[in-house]
Order: sequence, then C-alpha cells, then structure tokens
Amino acid sequence: MSQLEISCGLEYVVTPDLQACLTEALHSNYSFIVSPIVHPRFRRQFTSSAGKVGGFTRSDMILSPQDWTSRMVGKLSPYLDVDSPLPLVRQRHEDCLNEELSYCRGLGLPAIMLSLSGESNSNLARIINSYYENSHHPSLIWVQVPLVCTKTLRSVPECDEDDEESAWNEPWVWWSKFHERLNYDKRVGVVLELSADLPSQELLKRWLGEPVKAIVVPTSIFHNNKKGFPVLSKAHQQLVVSMVEHEAQVIVSGARRSNVEFYLQYLYRLWKRRPNPADDPMLSYARGWEDYLQIPLQPLADNLDTHTYNVFEKDPVKYDQYQKAIAQALIHLQKKSTDNAEIGEGEVGQGDNKKTITVMVLGAGRGPLVRATFNAADITNSKVKVIAVEKNPCAVVVLAAQVREVWRDRDVVVIPGDMRQINLSPKADIIVSELLGSWGDNELSPECLDGAAGLLKPGGISIPCAYRSFVAPISSPRLWAAAKAASSGNLSHKDKNLETLWVVYMQNKHDIAETKMVFTFEHPAKGVRDHEGQELTDYRGLPLTDNRRSATLSWTVEQDNVMHGFGGYFDCTLFGNEMISIVPSTHSPGMISWFPVFIPIKTPLRVEKGETITATFWRCVDSRRVWYEWIVEVGNRTTPLHNANGRSSEMLL
Amino acid sequence: MSQLEISCGLEYVVTPDLQACLTEALHSNYSFIVSPIVHPRFRRQFTSSAGKVGGFTRSDMILSPQDWTSRMVGKLSPYLDVDSPLPLVRQRHEDCLNEELSYCRGLGLPAIMLSLSGESNSNLARIINSYYENSHHPSLIWVQVPLVCTKTLRSVPECDEDDEESAWNEPWVWWSKFHERLNYDKRVGVVLELSADLPSQELLKRWLGEPVKAIVVPTSIFHNNKKGFPVLSKAHQQLVVSMVEHEAQVIVSGARRSNVEFYLQYLYRLWKRRPNPADDPMLSYARGWEDYLQIPLQPLADNLDTHTYNVFEKDPVKYDQYQKAIAQALIHLQKKSTDNAEIGEGEVGQGDNKKTITVMVLGAGRGPLVRATFNAADITNSKVKVIAVEKNPCAVVVLAAQVREVWRDRDVVVIPGDMRQINLSPKADIIVSELLGSWGDNELSPECLDGAAGLLKPGGISIPCAYRSFVAPISSPRLWAAAKAASSGNLSHKDKNLETLWVVYMQNKHDIAETKMVFTFEHPAKGVRDHEGQELTDYRGLPLTDNRRSATLSWTVEQDNVMHGFGGYFDCTLFGNEMISIVPSTHSPGMISWFPVFIPIKTPLRVEKGETITATFWRCVDSRRVWYEWIVEVGNRTTPLHNANGRSSEMLL
Repeated sequence: MSQLEISCGLEYVVTPDLQACLTEALHSNYSFIVSPIVHPRFRRQFTSSAGKVGGFTRSDMILSPQDWTSRMVGKLSPYLDVDSPLPLVRQRHEDCLNEELSYCRGLGLPAIMLSLSGESNSNLARIINSYYENSHHPSLIWVQVPLVCTKTLRSVPECDEDDEESAWNEPWVWWSKFHERLNYDKRVGVVLELSADLPSQELLKRWLGEPVKAIVVPTSIFHNNKKGFPVLSKAHQQLVVSMVEHEAQVIVSGARRSNVEFYLQYLYRLWKRRPNPADDPMLSYARGWEDYLQIPLQPLADNLDTHTYNVFEKDPVKYDQYQKAIAQALIHLQKKSTDNAEIGEGEVGQGDNKKTITVMVLGAGRGPLVRATFNAADITNSKVKVIAVEKNPCAVVVLAAQVREVWRDRDVVVIPGDMRQINLSPKADIIVSELLGSWGDNELSPECLDGAAGLLKPGGISIPCAYRSFVAPISSPRLWAAAKAASSGNLSHKDKNLETLWVVYMQNKHDIAETKMVFTFEHPAKGVRDHEGQELTDYRGLPLTDNRRSATLSWTVEQDNVMHGFGGYFDCTLFGNEMISIVPSTHSPGMISWFPVFIPIKTPLRVEKGETITATFWRCVDSRRVWYEWIVEVGNRTTPLHNANGRSSEMLL
Repeated sequence: MSQLEISCGLEYVVTPDLQACLTEALHSNYSFIVSPIVHPRFRRQFTSSAGKVGGFTRSDMILSPQDWTSRMVGKLSPYLDVDSPLPLVRQRHEDCLNEELSYCRGLGLPAIMLSLSGESNSNLARIINSYYENSHHPSLIWVQVPLVCTKTLRSVPECDEDDEESAWNEPWVWWSKFHERLNYDKRVGVVLELSADLPSQELLKRWLGEPVKAIVVPTSIFHNNKKGFPVLSKAHQQLVVSMVEHEAQVIVSGARRSNVEFYLQYLYRLWKRRPNPADDPMLSYARGWEDYLQIPLQPLADNLDTHTYNVFEKDPVKYDQYQKAIAQALIHLQKKSTDNAEIGEGEVGQGDNKKTITVMVLGAGRGPLVRATFNAADITNSKVKVIAVEKNPCAVVVLAAQVREVWRDRDVVVIPGDMRQINLSPKADIIVSELLGSWGDNELSPECLDGAAGLLKPGGISIPCAYRSFVAPISSPRLWAAAKAASSGNLSHKDKNLETLWVVYMQNKHDIAETKMVFTFEHPAKGVRDHEGQELTDYRGLPLTDNRRSATLSWTVEQDNVMHGFGGYFDCTLFGNEMISIVPSTHSPGMISWFPVFIPIKTPLRVEKGETITATFWRCVDSRRVWYEWIVEVGNRTTPLHNANGRSSEMLL
C-alpha cells in the first residue's frame, strides 16, 4: 500500500480533465500529486543524511507546462529546520531551503507548501520575506499546520482542560505569528490538517477568519460505511463544508485505505452541500464580491448614476418595508386626525371626507419611494399628495416622465433641488427618505434631514425616524491586507487606506466579540439647548442640531486572536415596528442594498483571552464635511489616532 | 504675596535683555510670564462659571511681536476636561479648547502648555492631532505632568512599596500614552513638575529619555540657606543640572517666598554646573550633533573625501592605541624570531642583525597608520618595511607626496589598488587596517580583510585581530521621530528610514536594559569546513569564510517603558591587550572617531516591568552587498521583519 496524497482542489474535481489527469496519474503509479520538490543536486547531497526523501517521480516528464504553472503545488522538504538552535544546521538548512525555493521559482509553480511545527519560525519568515522581495512572479505560500499540537496533547494529564485547550490553541499561534512576521501578506495562506478529534466551535470559527487555502484530510479519519465506502463523521463533514464554502481546497493524505476515486466522489458530494446561492438573494447578489473592498458612495456630493439606481431598486425587501412603514404612518395620521376631528367636531365637520396627507419624498431618485407611497395609500385607503424632491437632474428627468406617463391620475409634484435649500408650502405631514449608508449616518442623512427640517409640519413624521450604527471587533488578515494594498504602487497611500471605511461583503473574517451600538440619530432631530434649557435655532429658525458624536465601547476577548479592525453595520426604525437592519443578528432577510463596512486599524493588535478591547469613535463635523476618527486600546497598547482631522477620508457636505 | 511663575529658560537667563525684561515685568506687577491665554470672548462667557480665570494682564500691550513669537508660552485653561465622561461637558470644553488653540495660533506663540492629570486623554490627543493637521505654523506643545501622582500617593497605605512605586510611575504613563497617541510627534514635549520627594534614580533616568522641554520647580521646594537665600537640596540640584544638560528650561512657580532675582541667580549658578565641553573631547566634538541622524559612510563603495580624513585623523586616542598595538606586535614577532633563531641558530646565524618585518597598511588613507607604524618601530627599535595599500586615488597622491617629502629615509612603498584584488610578494608579517564602522563590521571590514588574506604570511598578525558588535534596547521618542521624519515630504520613505542604521550622537535616550554582544569577527579568519572537517578554499586558495551571522538576544525589562530601537556599538581588540571601544561601559576615553548607531524599529513597543525583549539580528551577504535584518518580540507581540532582503539599506561590496 503506497502513500497517497491527492490535491482534489474542488474546482478541479468538477472539471473532467483533472479527473482524467488524476486517474491517469494514479494508474501510472504517481504516488504524489502534491509532490516534494527536490532539486537533483540537493538530493544527491542529502539523501543519505536525511533519510527518506522520496516522492520525486516521473511526473515532471508527463505534465504540460500549463499544468506545472497552475496545478502543481511544491512541497518544501519537511525536515528542514532553519530555526534550529545549532548555527551550523541553521545555515546548511537555510542554503537548502533557498535552493528548493529557487527550484520552485524555476518551475513556475502556483503555490509552495511548507509546514510549521512550532512558534519559533522567525528565520523561516525572514527567508520567505526575502523570497518575495527577490521574485518577479512569486508563488503563493501555503503554510501547513495541524489542527491540534499532538505533542502538547500527549503531555497533558487527564482532565486538565486548560492544557488541552492550549494544545488546540498552539498551532493557530504558530500560524498567526508566522503570518504576522510576514505582515499578513495576502500571498500567504494556511493549510489545515484535520485531526480525528475536533475542538470547540469557537476555535473552529477562528480558523474561518484565516485565509485557509486547503484542508488536509488524513485517510485515517475516514471510516467505512455499511457499503464499505469511506465517509467522514458528521462533525468532520460540517467542518469540510464550511471550509469549502470559504474556498478552501481539500487534500486527502495518508495510507491508501480505499479506492482513490471513492474519496473523490465522497468529497464531491460534500462539496455540493455548500449553501446554494440560488436559495439566498444576498448570497447570489454578493457572489464575486466576497472580501472585495469598495469606497463608500457619496450620493450627496456626487450624483448617482443609472447603474447604481438599477442595483438599489432591485432590492426585494427594502421598499416593502418602506411601504409598510408609510402605511402605518398614514393610519397613524388618519387616526390622529379623526381623534382631533372628534374633539373639535364643530370646527371641521368633514365627516367621511378624508383629509389629504402630504408626503414628501426627499431624495426621490427615480421614484421607488413614490411608488411605495402610492401603494401604501391604496392599501390604507388614504388620500395623499406626493411631493418628490430630487437634486440629481438626470433622476428628475425620469421622475417627470413617470409623472406624465405612469402617475397621470395621481396627485404628485416633482421639485428639483437640494432638500436643504428649498422652501415649500404647505409643509409635509410625512417626509420619507432613504439616505442611509452601510454605517447608517455615513452618507450624511443626519445633515440632509436636519437641513430639510423646515419642510415638515410640527409634529410631522420622518421615515426613517431613527437609526443606529454598530461595530464588532474582527480578525481578518485578508481584509486588512486588501486595505493596506488597496492602491498599490503608491506607498504613501498605505496609511490613507488604513484610515478609510470600506464597503465590503465580508466573508473571510472572524468576530472577536459581539456587535455593539455606536451612534444614534433621531428625526425630527431636537436642537441643542443653552444654559437655560432653551432650544437654539439657526438663522432660518430651524433647530440648531449637533450631529457630532463620540462613543467609547469595550469588549472582553474570549479567545486569543489578532484584531485587524471592525465590522460596521446599522439598523433603522422606519416607523412604528417597521425596521431595516444589516446587523448580523437582526439582518432583514433577503435585503441586499447594503454590504457592511470594514473599518481597519493601522497596526493589527494581538489580543489575549480575558483582555479588554476599548475603542473610541468620533463623528466630526465642520462647515464643509463630516468624517470619523477612531482609536483602539488593548491593555497597555494604543493604536495611533486614525484619520486625524479627516486627512484620509471624509464625506463632503 | 502674589503667584509667581517665571519661565527662566536658560538661554534667556544669560541674555541680559530678558533679565531686563523680567525685571521690568516684575516691577510692573506682571505676575505671569507663562500666562494663561484667555480669549476675550471666551472669558466673558465663562469667567463666572469657571471661577478664577486670572492672569490675563497688560503684557500683550507691552511685548513686541517678536517677544510674542519667541518668548511667550500659551497656557491652556487647566480646568478644561475634554475627556470628561459627560458628553455635554466634553463637547463644551472641546469647543473652548479649540477656541484657545485658535487664539494661540493667532498670537503665533512658539509653544502651548497644557497639563495632564490622568491616563484618559484620547480626546485631548485627538484635538491636538487636528490642531497639527490644521495649522501652517503650529506651536510646540508642552505637556505638563507632575513627577508623582499625589492622589495615588495619598491613598497608599504606609509601607506599601508597590503602590508607592506606581504613584511615581503613573504620570510617566499619562505622558507616554499621550505622546504615543500623537505617534511620538517631535513637536510635542513634556514639562515635568518637581516634587519635594524624589523617586529612584532609575525612574529619573527614564525621564531623561523623554523630550523634557522644561521643568517646573515650585518655590515650596526651595529652602533658605544661612544667608536667607533660596536654595535646593543636593538631590534636586543634581536633577536640575541633569535636566538642564538635556536642554530643558526651568520654570519657577508658586507663592513668591523670596526676591525673584534670587531664584534666577541661584538657577543660573546651577546652570553653570553643566559638564563643560572643554573638559571632554567627545562632548566638545559632538556639540551640535546631539540626536542628529547621519547615514553611515560606505568607504568601500565610495571614496572618502578630504573633510572626512581631516576629522578622523584628528582623533587623539585611536592612533595612539594602534601605535601601541603595532609596537606589541613587533615585539612579539622579534621575540618569536629570536626564539626561532635560538632553536635553528646554525641555519640563520644573524646574531645582532635584526630581521626586517614587513607591515602592510591596508586602506592607508592619507597615512596615519603608516606614521603609527614608524613610531612603533622607532620605539621598539625594530626594522620595518611598510607597504601602504590604498584604493582611493586622491589619498594615493597624498601618500606618494609623503613618501617623497616626509618618509624619504624610510623603507616604504605605496601600492594603489583594492586590497581584495592585489597580489604582493613577499607577504606581510603584520597587516594593519582601520576599516571598522560604528557597529563594528558594518563598513565591511570582514569582507575586505578576508579578501586580503592572501597578503598575510601564514601565522602573521592582523591588527585588529577581533571585533564585536553590541546592542542595547533603548527608549527615545526623539530619535524615533527623527528617523521616521528623516526624509520628510516623501511618505514612501517612512518605512525605509525605520529600516536603516543611523549614525548619531545619542543624547535624549534611555537604556531599557544592558548592552549585549551581537556578532564576533576574528582575523585572520578561518574557512568553513566540509563534512569531513576539511577547511574549504576559494579559487585563489584563500580560506572560504562565511561572514553571515545571526544572533538572538534577550533582555528582562526592569521598569515600564517604550522601546523605540537599539543603541549599537562595537569594541575591538587590536593586538594583545590593546583595545578600542565605543561600548558605553568600556568607551576608550577621549576617542571621538565613532558615534554609535541607532537601529530603529518600525512600531515602538510598550514593554512592562518583568517582560522579556527578544531580538534577532541577521547579517546577510550576497555577491554584491551586505545588509542587516532584525526582528523584535515582546511577549505575544512581534515587529515586522526589518529590512527584508536589504530593501531599505545595504552596504555595497
């Protein structure tokens, strides 16, 4: 029974040619697909002293150049110990390692695999760093670690849970420190070798925040089912599926206990169990945008284009929620007006003749909220007059066309202009707007709505009436490296990029602690008060609001981790009980309009179980712009202040 | 008795005009020189609520504009608490603080003083950050902290040393974290308020590593001497002198218990006690170069110019040491030759007729080592033939001129060329070179001397015969900020500068732990050996040496601190007992040829008492160049690898 190690990278499994290739390889007795790369000269030199080198096969003679540069993963000799305490060994092994790396470079392999077996790997990290500095087309580096440190596990006395926990923690520390030493280079990923036992869910979830490129499933953890085919336990199945969902490939390794094709077929069945994007609008919408950073829109400073409107209007949930909220508001006003009518019956005496409710849609775009308003009016049997305010001339053209063509028999007016600068009479009973960004107020909804406060009757309703921003500290080498590199080539932007909010569908991340609320805004907003409690007003008589905020939040760390920034979310009360939310725990099902934000920190912070993360966020405002600043502290350590004076990112008023 | 606060900046004390100005000010009842800056509008608004504002005097009417921009320090209202837990207070005080800062900016003050009274100052740091971002000509910020936190001290039960220590530690933490939040901005300094009791020397020394701009000496800690004049205790005197030596100014503050001029006169007497540069060649030579960063020379790749030779040849100690070492070597060889003669008397039988000893000076420059060799030969009554090898054509001209004019009756030859490439016969009994840099091997002495190994007879002597590099972890916000800013305007160089060795006369720094040895080199060097223990040789038959090195060092931290990098030094055994050293504990007295190096780290590391700092240094070599890489770890934290593949700094072969 020969050794078996198959890289059944899942995208390969589905392509018939690799299956053919694999089959051929197996029939031809090629025992390695992931094959140790051994330089012939080096081999001659060391075979004797290093024992079995093995695995250097005829495969380099039958594979095409394209196979070499896309399918083969080089495996560095595992016995090389460049961090040996013995200077002579260290130096010799370093020379050998460099030779193997050069050979891989010569072959043009897409990835090179190496394994870690301890925390002391700074010389190895240094060599890989040099390799990257020296190579024009460097390969990916795949760092293999076991899921559990068996050495520590074996030395644990029975029932000592702390030590057992550390056996599970250690390999993560090896990897994490190695990656840190490479400054979380995005070309470096991890290969996780599964064990028969599995750790707690929390520990497994932490791995999902790491860039796991592949998992190694030893044949020894398969067992045979009734029909004699190799299968995995439920827990292992689940782990494989969740890894595969994160784009990890699968390597089957170890003694060949069954027909290779049976393993392949079984893994292919598992692979098909990934959540189907067709079942989840968000998954299908976000496909291809995973962990891809985008600059937040500035719909106030810039006019949106038709593509953006197209995307937003497609949301299957958002406008339903708005429609429900408007309906509730209409009912509320009708009830109030009836109550008033009953009290002062003599005065009005309209009887059945319904009062017309004025609804202003502020930032009407191409009209989705106008439609929602008409729908709500129809449902609640209300009489509405709609005033659609829109500053974007292109959208105004579309609105005007709809008034002519679609809404001919409706009471609707289009007013072009900036809601902060127009004056209309009569005033609105309800104003409806959709000005929220991924972090709630970050597209300047507070400033816009406060500027439009003069359009609303006293006691009128704003939809939305309140919104809140949220953050959770997260670990994500991938997002951090992406932010750092976001405008590569221009090093002076490195700091800028790490002082910016990024809109991103976050996939490869791990929540270090729970999501907490940051800022709250309410509409209509109250003005600040002077010493005597008098509300201050501006030159137009509008309440003088203060939309500056600061908030300090703290979290206790539940397990060792590295913090790279925050996930940012919002939720929003439209009216009454009608909410929309992108906070993970309360996310409106099926709503696709907003991806979360990633708020990076300049220097990742290593945090230990039991430590406290304290973050302060400021929302700063001057006459021309709004921006955020933030700072994070863990124990004695402090990040620099991020985005001082809005130097790196700002929203223009 | 009115309040008294005098900024007797020491450079002012010696200029008569400030004394006149002070006297005038005092006669005119100006009670503040360091005066709280109160914006008139602000004052109107807050005088009532904030109690005594005071100190706003007529001084702005009598001082010239130049006085305002060079002599006056603005003092921010001390009651402002922008980190208050109450949002309303925080916001109001922030508005006030910004108004005061704008007023200071309007006045063009050279510095603005504010005080810290706790660790929670992130909003204050944020505001100062914004102030710097917003100002074209920002003032220095002087941050006043007490030497001891009296609040903590008072709450300490008797005999609890730990708590008492923390009372002394706290104000440093307040300052250090505030400075960290400002990314160690070099425009931010500290003003230290002395207390009647003083802490341990270690704690005081740590303050000497901080950028102390001024010390506040309360009048209450003066006592009257027999004649009734105010004087300080011995310990306080010493502290004032050491601070003044580090360019700190002195502010006398508090109730006026004596004539102001007596304080001035007394402080002036203390000021004169500073070490006199005239007494110490190094002090006088380094004057003006304190904490000024220079790129290390590359005498191998570049040819030195006459200014550099001028400086080096002036060293009063170095060539004396070389002369002694050469003399010892000559005696040693004479003795050996006599011994040999005695053994094999029949063979040679020269009797009194002395053997000529061939001394090669490798890198002779303009000849100082040639002179030292002739002196040593005269003293030891030896017969020498000197061969001066020099690659710099300009220096060769000077050497040739000296041969013609000065050394006419000496046995001396000048050979132009690179010592690594020439071949001479007969070979030398002694080779003498002076190729060391501030960190020992960093000007490529090992590579040069190994390349010249063919010039030395088997068993011949190399002077120097061994050298060692040393490092100590240091705290120095000033050096770190200087390195970070070293090529300002080009942000892409920030990282480069923090991956470079800097030659600098370090003044404003504090040693976190003791100095330890890093790399050792010996000459003549031994070649590496193969598996069978055989020394390998290169194509010329010279020993194949390996000048790559790596070394891992650890230190235990004795008190809380922030590590910004390393101080780097070397020592060198010339021959026998003759040494030269710039290691602080063994520094050759009066030797001025080398300033130490500062080896920065990219991100300063906060270290706590009891933690271990572990650093690894690599000396890397390829066919064209030599460079260093380094990485530092403290507990769970790791710096990135510095200077991977020599990307930021290298020495060309």
